[in-house]
Amino acid sequence: MTIPSAAIGRVLDAIRARRPLVHNITNYVVMNTTANALLAVGASPAMVHAEAEVEEFTGIADALVINIGTLSPPWITAMHLAAAKARTFGKPWVLDPVGTGATRLRTDTAFALLEHRPTLIRGNGSEIVALAGGIGATRGVESTAGEAASLDAAKALAAATGSIVAVTGPVDRVTDGAEVWSCANGDVRMTRVTGLGCTLSALSAACLAAEPAVAALSACVILGVAGELAAAATEGPGSLQVAILDRLADLDATTLERQARLS
Amino acid sequence: MTIPSAAIGRVLDAIRARRPLVHNITNYVVMNTTANALLAVGASPAMVHAEAEVEEFTGIADALVINIGTLSPPWITAMHLAAAKARTFGKPWVLDPVGTGATRLRTDTAFALLEHRPTLIRGNGSEIVALAGGIGATRGVESTAGEAASLDAAKALAAATGSIVAVTGPVDRVTDGAEVWSCANGDVRMTRVTGLGCTLSALSAACLAAEPAVAALSACVILGVAGELAAAATEGPGSLQVAILDRLADLDATTLERQARLS
Amino acid sequence: MTIPSAAIGRVLDAIRARRPLVHNITNYVVMNTTANALLAVGASPAMVHAEAEVEEFTGIADALVINIGTLSPPWITAMHLAAAKARTFGKPWVLDPVGTGATRLRTDTAFALLEHRPTLIRGNGSEIVALAGGIGATRGVESTAGEAASLDAAKALAAATGSIVAVTGPVDRVTDGAEVWSCANGDVRMTRVTGLGCTLSALSAACLAAEPAVAALSACVILGVAGELAAAATEGPGSLQVAILDRLADLDATTLERQARLS
Repeated sequence: MTIPSAAIGRVLDAIRARRPLVHNITNYVVMNTTANALLAVGASPAMVHAEAEVEEFTGIADALVINIGTLSPPWITAMHLAAAKARTFGKPWVLDPVGTGATRLRTDTAFALLEHRPTLIRGNGSEIVALAGGIGATRGVESTAGEAASLDAAKALAAATGSIVAVTGPVDRVTDGAEVWSCANGDVRMTRVTGLGCTLSALSAACLAAEPAVAALSACVILGVAGELAAAATEGPGSLQVAILDRLADLDATTLERQARLS
Repeated sequence: MTIPSAAIGRVLDAIRARRPLVHNITNYVVMNTTANALLAVGASPAMVHAEAEVEEFTGIADALVINIGTLSPPWITAMHLAAAKARTFGKPWVLDPVGTGATRLRTDTAFALLEHRPTLIRGNGSEIVALAGGIGATRGVESTAGEAASLDAAKALAAATGSIVAVTGPVDRVTDGAEVWSCANGDVRMTRVTGLGCTLSALSAACLAAEPAVAALSACVILGVAGELAAAATEGPGSLQVAILDRLADLDATTLERQARLS
Repeated sequence: MTIPSAAIGRVLDAIRARRPLVHNITNYVVMNTTANALLAVGASPAMVHAEAEVEEFTGIADALVINIGTLSPPWITAMHLAAAKARTFGKPWVLDPVGTGATRLRTDTAFALLEHRPTLIRGNGSEIVALAGGIGATRGVESTAGEAASLDAAKALAAATGSIVAVTGPVDRVTDGAEVWSCANGDVRMTRVTGLGCTLSALSAACLAAEPAVAALSACVILGVAGELAAAATEGPGSLQVAILDRLADLDATTLERQARLS
């Protein structure tokens, strides 16, 4: 089933109309940039991780993101509490398995969180390969797995978990285990900005809250097009990080539809 | 009693002359931007939260900010230790009750911290209403309470606690429970940048250390005018966040006095 | 022994060729900017601090940075585990003793970490003086010690520990206890941007992983030249922070060699 680019534009409009509250349990590196990206695109961010309040907060949020980028034991407990609550309440939630495969703690934590059935799992090739039970040669938090292996792992992971899986890189692939949708937006210079994968996961949660059907692919297009527009007008990774926020804020459905590179 | 705009300019000059050391126990989202805002305006920031050192650090700081944006139990303990020490030493301290009303933990924590008698409480309408015992329909960390209800809550809170209360939004209001001072500076685009309320609380602490009498109103004018100047020359929330730091650094007393919108 | 500026250029090229993975246990304020600076210069950053994974991660990293800017007990445990592992594995590691002298916890923690024999200790004058056992009048995290006292302390600290010591400020000095190398690059406006000392420590770790012999001095020149180029074209501390990342990314060996101010 092909997803028309017009559907992506409608997701952006839906975010701005509904202004979903996105509950983030995320890493320290990206908290500021993620909150700003959510605000820029038209969603409402909150970073809440204390065990004593995560369940209550998941209850009032429209979507949840769990990102394991900077783990520690009390946060892992909070992640399980929040994910369980999201599942109970039928709220969409995104798992970003940062660095899965790099250390045992990350791999174990990501695996354990699967029991709460994430709506969407978004990672790079190495992370998805590692999470699918393969042997990803993850080096740090960057992707080194080949594209074909990554896509196979993504399909297997989706089939096994019932989650949508997005494996992102030069071309982003979204799969439900059977079909695959691709997005070729983005710019290679975005790899020099820290945490844009994390931003993509957060934007995916905003899309899920607004329009579940094509959420993951929409987030890839939204960030990809914003990144392309930003990269064309900036002179390095510092100004690129800033300009992506500017472009997320002034992006419109018409531009998205025109520039989406779907297949 | 009207506060003349010239008094605001003098506060800015006093910060630069005295370079107050501001001790921040604040949230992860804003640590970088808050530290940069304090440096830009001419103060000296430090982020210190370990139970083993907060009291010692409060002892050498000129003012303290406690911001409950990303709570966890050890930080709550540290907040109480630092606030108690600030009170004992007669050092000014600011409570920023982020998200009060959104979860029980936040509401309880903010209430409990009142026992240490903050010099200033700065929040948005929902937070101030919730803290005043009302029932703010806080959604995330954004303000949804009406302006009249917010001001009534601020006055009641100030009267009950002896703190100055600043309830900020499109128009910022500062009250001691009897009188009310207003500042209409700022730009609506500032709501698309995360953590500017937190920045305002930190700047308020710098003002308190430099010139207690008109500190809260001064901080509203300083950030508001910097935000207006920045918004006029930027094209989105990313570049606005950056430009606000630039404008805080080159702001002068004359510009402040000319652009202050007080009533 | 004079270090020729051509050697500095070769370090930059080596970072880009080898793309070292730098393991950071650092403070919350600078995590985003440090990760971005490492990516910009051509290294690969990771922020990993959980006790359960730090040793494993040090094992796969090429260099380690331990920065005590925002301490808490579980992080101190992780710092010791990681530093011990780096020493066992013969991997270079950098100690950034932020705020040593300001509180007992910081001074004690920095002293205790010396047992793991850091390859490099990088701090400002007050921190180095305090760590060398002197009585630095540290005010917050800024340097107030005089230049001569700082250099004497750096030499004594290097002689006592076997570490290279870099004491940075208007002129950066690197010493092995006997010889002293100096770098006069940088711009006074860089003192208005939070965490550039932390960035320098992280860049030093990247240099150590690429080319140990002249690493500390190279990092001073790299950040100093990037800062000079950035400061010449920006209008305040916000845009300076952004432009430094842009300049780190497009810096080349020829520019470094031409602009290095060594002595």
